[in-house]
Amino acid sequence: MKMDSDFGIARELSDLQKLRAQYQPQLPPCLEGTTVRVEFGDGTTTADPHGAHTISRSFPHSYGQPLAHFLRATAKVPDAQIITDHPPIRVGLVFCGRQSPGGHNVIWGLHDALKVHNPNSTLLGFLGGSEGLFAQKTLEITDDILATYKNQGGYDLLGRTKDQIRTTEQVNAAMAACKALKLDGLVVIGGVTSNTDAAQLAETFAEAKCQTKVVGVPVTLNGDLKNQFVETNVGFDTICKVNSQLISNVCTDALSAEKYYYFIRLMGRKASQVALECTLQSHPNMVILGEEVAASKLTLFDITKQICDAVQARAEQDKYHGVILLPEGLIESIPEVYALLQEIHGLLRQGVSADSISSQLTPWASALFEFLPPFIRKQLLLFPESDDSAQLSQIETEKLLAHLVEAEINRRLKDGTYKGKKFNAICHFFGYQARGSLPSKFDCDYAYVLGHICYHILAAGLNGYMATVTNLKNPVNKWKCGAAPITAMMTVKRYGRGPGTQSLGKPALHPATVDLKGKAYELLRQNATKFLMDDVYRNPGPLQFDGPGADAKSVTLCVEDQDYMGRIKRLQEYLDKVRTIVKPGCSQDVLKAALSAMSSVTDILSVMSTPSNSGNTPF
Amino acid sequence: MKMDSDFGIARELSDLQKLRAQYQPQLPPCLEGTTVRVEFGDGTTTADPHGAHTISRSFPHSYGQPLAHFLRATAKVPDAQIITDHPPIRVGLVFCGRQSPGGHNVIWGLHDALKVHNPNSTLLGFLGGSEGLFAQKTLEITDDILATYKNQGGYDLLGRTKDQIRTTEQVNAAMAACKALKLDGLVVIGGVTSNTDAAQLAETFAEAKCQTKVVGVPVTLNGDLKNQFVETNVGFDTICKVNSQLISNVCTDALSAEKYYYFIRLMGRKASQVALECTLQSHPNMVILGEEVAASKLTLFDITKQICDAVQARAEQDKYHGVILLPEGLIESIPEVYALLQEIHGLLRQGVSADSISSQLTPWASALFEFLPPFIRKQLLLFPESDDSAQLSQIETEKLLAHLVEAEINRRLKDGTYKGKKFNAICHFFGYQARGSLPSKFDCDYAYVLGHICYHILAAGLNGYMATVTNLKNPVNKWKCGAAPITAMMTVKRYGRGPGTQSLGKPALHPATVDLKGKAYELLRQNATKFLMDDVYRNPGPLQFDGPGADAKSVTLCVEDQDYMGRIKRLQEYLDKVRTIVKPGCSQDVLKAALSAMSSVTDILSVMSTPSNSGNTPF
Repeated sequence: MKMDSDFGIARELSDLQKLRAQYQPQLPPCLEGTTVRVEFGDGTTTADPHGAHTISRSFPHSYGQPLAHFLRATAKVPDAQIITDHPPIRVGLVFCGRQSPGGHNVIWGLHDALKVHNPNSTLLGFLGGSEGLFAQKTLEITDDILATYKNQGGYDLLGRTKDQIRTTEQVNAAMAACKALKLDGLVVIGGVTSNTDAAQLAETFAEAKCQTKVVGVPVTLNGDLKNQFVETNVGFDTICKVNSQLISNVCTDALSAEKYYYFIRLMGRKASQVALECTLQSHPNMVILGEEVAASKLTLFDITKQICDAVQARAEQDKYHGVILLPEGLIESIPEVYALLQEIHGLLRQGVSADSISSQLTPWASALFEFLPPFIRKQLLLFPESDDSAQLSQIETEKLLAHLVEAEINRRLKDGTYKGKKFNAICHFFGYQARGSLPSKFDCDYAYVLGHICYHILAAGLNGYMATVTNLKNPVNKWKCGAAPITAMMTVKRYGRGPGTQSLGKPALHPATVDLKGKAYELLRQNATKFLMDDVYRNPGPLQFDGPGADAKSVTLCVEDQDYMGRIKRLQEYLDKVRTIVKPGCSQDVLKAALSAMSSVTDILSVMSTPSNSGNTPF
Repeated sequence: MKMDSDFGIARELSDLQKLRAQYQPQLPPCLEGTTVRVEFGDGTTTADPHGAHTISRSFPHSYGQPLAHFLRATAKVPDAQIITDHPPIRVGLVFCGRQSPGGHNVIWGLHDALKVHNPNSTLLGFLGGSEGLFAQKTLEITDDILATYKNQGGYDLLGRTKDQIRTTEQVNAAMAACKALKLDGLVVIGGVTSNTDAAQLAETFAEAKCQTKVVGVPVTLNGDLKNQFVETNVGFDTICKVNSQLISNVCTDALSAEKYYYFIRLMGRKASQVALECTLQSHPNMVILGEEVAASKLTLFDITKQICDAVQARAEQDKYHGVILLPEGLIESIPEVYALLQEIHGLLRQGVSADSISSQLTPWASALFEFLPPFIRKQLLLFPESDDSAQLSQIETEKLLAHLVEAEINRRLKDGTYKGKKFNAICHFFGYQARGSLPSKFDCDYAYVLGHICYHILAAGLNGYMATVTNLKNPVNKWKCGAAPITAMMTVKRYGRGPGTQSLGKPALHPATVDLKGKAYELLRQNATKFLMDDVYRNPGPLQFDGPGADAKSVTLCVEDQDYMGRIKRLQEYLDKVRTIVKPGCSQDVLKAALSAMSSVTDILSVMSTPSNSGNTPF
């Protein structure tokens, strides 16, 4: 870790950065002022009916807690309570996992909310991520320190190191830090892994009667912390806009030079959310989603053939250029490559050195391994990540596919099935160059509001909750703020995946993969042929902060069904209404009608909620 | 080439693109209205005193023509003439070489100028670059066609294919096209290669009494068409801004994660202009300019050591991250690699297959070749480009250096000289993703104005000129418009470079390398230590079209001496003044003083202008 004195120092900002530092995100009406009301909904279950029991057993203190909605002081909700007592509190905040644009604004929002409710409250940032938490290295957040970090990218105000707070030793170190620093709250900023850790911390703290309440915040550029309660993640909007700018530039380049196929791999871990969104923004010729490949069990050869057929169809229209997007998780979605990776990772975990692995593979895996070009072999031999996946950012799937496609096109050229010009590929990986970007207006607003919500969660005394904002596709003044128990978002894997991996049945947040029945994917399918053949490239341009495009939201966010929290509330209103209408003393007819109707409703819902035998991820 | 019907079709624009399409570039006062005056300066020589004779011999019809300045109709310049006759003319325009942001605006500016002076004039765009010129495939430019291409990136309105118009066959095909299409003018848009070709075409056309006048326009993202008359090139500003955005994002990322060294290679061909400008905009830790390496004759080992020493010095301050920029031309600047490449290219040109080259290298070259990692070997064996350089965009210098640095750091770790943490490198190539960008406001304006100037060059009947704008660091209303004979920008190489390369003494425009005595480089040197050690990363942010940063100009443009054309004019004014004062009839004393002063002035200038034996590139 670098010397502490470097953290929190004021920086020189460029003119644009200065302008951005002046930007004040709006708050939704429910969070304005100091008299926020909190309304509790019904106790939560989880969307995975299989897992509910396992999860409730693993999280006896934090499972089943109600949803919380934050409302305007004037909202006409009888049960909502105004929290009037705001003693000074001490809150710690830690950046976990990979940086995502907007992270700094969570700090800012939380700091503003703390100070407006009690100027004596204290916000401590842990320096260098979870390592700083364990070592109790903190920086007290002040207005001065925040000045040059407002609406700015990166995690460099506090830094970050390791991702996990998981082992007993780590959890104990975290608890010791919270106790030593007398924290009333600990805010964990991160993606699926970090929020799973936050839930575990919350449970452990409750069990140990530690006073610190733990709150999670969904901040991950992968956009894969998605569920009933969480519509999108801080950073996803920015990443997709920056990547789409670059993809569009490459599309323009392809159309100008008319002689290259660009193979572009996109950061985003296992799920293909970033690739899907960028496709909908930029309209490249093709995208190969990991989810499609996994669902159709496509082999490497199938994918190669699919791309070659596209190249050939375009050549028949005299087109020798194109842009093809590949999510970095694609490589693991190809069944035979996944199986090979599992064997390799198993051997690596047994301590077999990378050099001698190839001789210890099963004959089938060995055959595939030897078939692959040397550069990919070397990359597949890298030690797996802490979440059990391969080092996706290091595996150049784009080069592998370009290589295989070139070989296949040359074969077709020889046997006369392909009659076009030479196939030329150029490969790119778009990842790190987007991750440090200035956050988009949306991400600035979203993160700032989430920071405020963290305060209200703590003020309401809640533990093991994630801050949530729903209705995000609408303007900020329509946003709905709330909190949901992290356990309600968990699922349980029903089978292990090879030796040494996560043990069977451990509840966790899992990356939400692209829903192949969802509206965003449907939009892609409807346009796939046009994208492939007609070069209807779309260029959203560089990230803007004013004027057209500055308020654009991600396409997936806008087309998907939303406001689950709102609908849950509306359902409660219906139930309350039935109860009011069918009060004792109502007519027999009304009661009969109510009974008959409610009986069929409950029948249908019971059938729908019975665990089926389909996949393990409900979204 | 793709079907012609695809060219010039209206496209769907994104909201931001639509806004940009509405932007109307300003014209400097001298080009407003229809009464532009042209003033001719003295006949030109060339900055390379060695070459003047050779150039004049090679270009008997086009060498030594005067500079032209375009002035306001009301300008008080006695000799300037207003061109009043504007018959309808037919002009052809061709995109040569690699696309550069802003190219479309040259078409737009030229079209506007043509039509405002005579609505019956015609502008024909050649489809698919020089191939379209040879094949006489054209698209008539109209307001409708331009609508969705104004201020937009790429070359996709017309496309481009090959770079060169050089062989007798090609030159004849171009002349045939100009004659068949009855062109009064041919506008060639491109960089050093294409403008050299334009000069050759002009000479050949004049010799053959072909009526078509040839005009060149300096459009190249490399920023290497720089000389007394040309301050910068269309596209350079955009490319540097887009790349600087990405470099800054990576710097933020490095500072947040604190565990990676990023090695970033930048597009820009032989010269390191792009790398220098991006360094001055983003302040990464290090840049290794090809010009420095060539001047100091640094070996691959020297460069590796230099980077390792930097990594080690930073580790001693507990810093394990950093960002290092490398121009793509660096690889050719390393003397021993250059020698190796020359051998390889020689053998390739003799028809030796790539597979058998390694066995035919000289022992010394062979030893270096075998020392290099396999992926680089493969890339070095690629056939050279038409300009005799290696395929720079394909050679992953960043990976080679990361590889060598890692090995050296590991060695130092073993022998105890390096005591820090593990060295981790991540490599990037930033090229194609910037090339298709929406052009910056500067490039939109500059290209549009150059387009107008093309018209005035043709209206003045000039042949073999390049359109020029000087005083560019000032606002558009201070820009000075002119034209200079392309031959005045030529230099002559004094030695060949290995077998089969450009023959000795052929005049050409050569890429302007970074001037190691220039102000921009001095600025870099002054800050190098601070950049290296203090992480004073600067983030100009994404390309903006309004507000802070939208009007920012490149740092190199702003610090360098400029307005050569203006100073040439001021000199003429002084000479005229002396002539006026010392008219026959003036006093003996005045005459004596004038003679004495002018005698010493001419002595000094004679000494300064005598050919010295230093390098072959005067800039």
